[in-house]
Amino acid sequence: MPTSNSDEAGGARDPGRAPTLAPGGYPPLAVTIGDPAGIGPDITLASWLQRASLQLPPFVVVGDPDVLADRAVRLSLAVPIESVADFEAGRATFAEALPVLPVRGAGVGGDKAMIVAAIEEATVAVLERRALGMVTNPITKSALNFAELAYPGHTEYLARLAERHAGGPRPRPVMMLAAEELKVGPATVHVPLTSVAPLLSAELLSETITITAAALTRDFGIGAPRIAVTGLNPHAGEDGLIGVEEVRLIRPIVAALAASGLAVSGPYAADTLFHAEARRGYDAVVAMYHDQALIPLKTLAFERGVNITLGLPFVRTSPDHGTAFAIAGTGKARPGSFIAALRLAAEVGHRRARASGAARR
Amino acid sequence: MPTSNSDEAGGARDPGRAPTLAPGGYPPLAVTIGDPAGIGPDITLASWLQRASLQLPPFVVVGDPDVLADRAVRLSLAVPIESVADFEAGRATFAEALPVLPVRGAGVGGDKAMIVAAIEEATVAVLERRALGMVTNPITKSALNFAELAYPGHTEYLARLAERHAGGPRPRPVMMLAAEELKVGPATVHVPLTSVAPLLSAELLSETITITAAALTRDFGIGAPRIAVTGLNPHAGEDGLIGVEEVRLIRPIVAALAASGLAVSGPYAADTLFHAEARRGYDAVVAMYHDQALIPLKTLAFERGVNITLGLPFVRTSPDHGTAFAIAGTGKARPGSFIAALRLAAEVGHRRARASGAARR
Repeated sequence: MPTSNSDEAGGARDPGRAPTLAPGGYPPLAVTIGDPAGIGPDITLASWLQRASLQLPPFVVVGDPDVLADRAVRLSLAVPIESVADFEAGRATFAEALPVLPVRGAGVGGDKAMIVAAIEEATVAVLERRALGMVTNPITKSALNFAELAYPGHTEYLARLAERHAGGPRPRPVMMLAAEELKVGPATVHVPLTSVAPLLSAELLSETITITAAALTRDFGIGAPRIAVTGLNPHAGEDGLIGVEEVRLIRPIVAALAASGLAVSGPYAADTLFHAEARRGYDAVVAMYHDQALIPLKTLAFERGVNITLGLPFVRTSPDHGTAFAIAGTGKARPGSFIAALRLAAEVGHRRARASGAARR
Repeated sequence: MPTSNSDEAGGARDPGRAPTLAPGGYPPLAVTIGDPAGIGPDITLASWLQRASLQLPPFVVVGDPDVLADRAVRLSLAVPIESVADFEAGRATFAEALPVLPVRGAGVGGDKAMIVAAIEEATVAVLERRALGMVTNPITKSALNFAELAYPGHTEYLARLAERHAGGPRPRPVMMLAAEELKVGPATVHVPLTSVAPLLSAELLSETITITAAALTRDFGIGAPRIAVTGLNPHAGEDGLIGVEEVRLIRPIVAALAASGLAVSGPYAADTLFHAEARRGYDAVVAMYHDQALIPLKTLAFERGVNITLGLPFVRTSPDHGTAFAIAGTGKARPGSFIAALRLAAEVGHRRARASGAARR
């Protein structure tokens, strides 16, 4: 990947104009605590313990420090928890203790208030460049029903927060799952299967593909990214024999974007698009729906995939699993995907910071 | 797997009552030639050349011998083609030449007539136990539109032939893709994605699961097979938050079958059901639709998967790919999945023949 050491050095030489590039390095990542009843605290504590051996980027948890302290006791983990006043202090603390920017809830619905407040606090921090990027721990949808409006998920809520705090039109977030083996994003996400076809529109597909292409360049450093697009139906519809969406919608959109200069192709039969030989032919896949994208990703790279939200004005990653309430506090939660999410957020954050520094000079 | 050498010996001791268990071994497999314009002839020739090194079960091609002879010349393959009068003669020929039971078409539509006639000839042969099992080479749907009725695919046509030639009600064929890593079958197959939910019924799911369970025992020798059932929607619907089919249909069916004694469970989120650790928890998966089943199979075992049709009164397998017209006659076609289909047909055929011999004693 084309990284640029000179950009990095340039950013560090001029800290006054780029508050995020403070002397000594980049700001830390902001980690939201997620649902206290889930495994977010477990995997956060476990990851901090491996900070040195795995050379993890520094991070600051946003949430209730008592939740982390209690979980550390329950899991018999020797993790000192230290409340910090800001992210810069957190970065300095990280080597010796797990730094937490305290956000607390109170009374009925206290946990839900805390979860939502932590997400908003972290969002503002990354928008203001006090944090390099944001890594979100799992929540359940019901936590967001508590917020002023009901959002279908974490990602949609972040788009709304970005609009409110950064101004401009609400961005269209695009979900991508990234692992060493595969990068893939679904055009529709957490909707019933019967809603997929009605939701697919020229605008949705076109924006999903162009946002994905732009992110592959900006966030992953791929110069002219090749994107493969799946069909909706078995065998990509066999020229209209098994469904019409390929002929009527997907094929024309792909052709138009290819004519505009993007290296996009398809629609391809999804079942033969994800074996090792096929994967050498593209940099990322845009799929039509959740399982079409996530089945191959999790089959190939379970607990190593990272969810990255493209199209936001800040870096946001998350592990590719849910709250896993049943194993919270048991010691069974595995931090692999969370650690991969920390690494990817730092990598993308560094790349964006360097590009931003280069643009300012 | 619990195989029984004594059953096999028993069958061989009593050839008079079991015409399929002739002295010297089982009858050969019947291989349909498939579409002459596709790669069926290529992979059949390539497989025969490896009959000794791979210890392949003997097979007899049903179709036009000139197609095979011409393709051998075009590919510069030294394969002698020998027309045989019946399967028993073909078995004797197999070591020295590729035996073909001649079926020819004529005039306009000659190829299509030949393709269909070969399938029917092979079906009758396996029903009459002159062939151990049937391995079908790829065809296109249009070949079957030529037949007296239009069938959505190979499998449905075989069910109709079984009804016509064997009597009794038309069997419900169930498609399973089998590889070393995974056995998985979709409840719906070659239908548009928008038709999947309307087609799912209690009867379809119940029959698909019970036929799969019975076949795992009869055809794969698994005593008390564990079957995992997917949900239809992302995250298996999250208790009705993302689609209702799990709550209304799939969960009650699974519960009822489990109460009846089957080791069936689910519905499970499909995206986390196919990684290595999850696969240790079941013997086969019943999925709701084509891509949900075939994406994981072909991602894990591309060109090694075998399509086996469960629920028919005879053994039928096929490679997991299509006609691949573009590479027919070029030498690029790879016989891996076809060879796996030959092996599996013989394995299942042997198991059924032993069980049948055992039942007769």
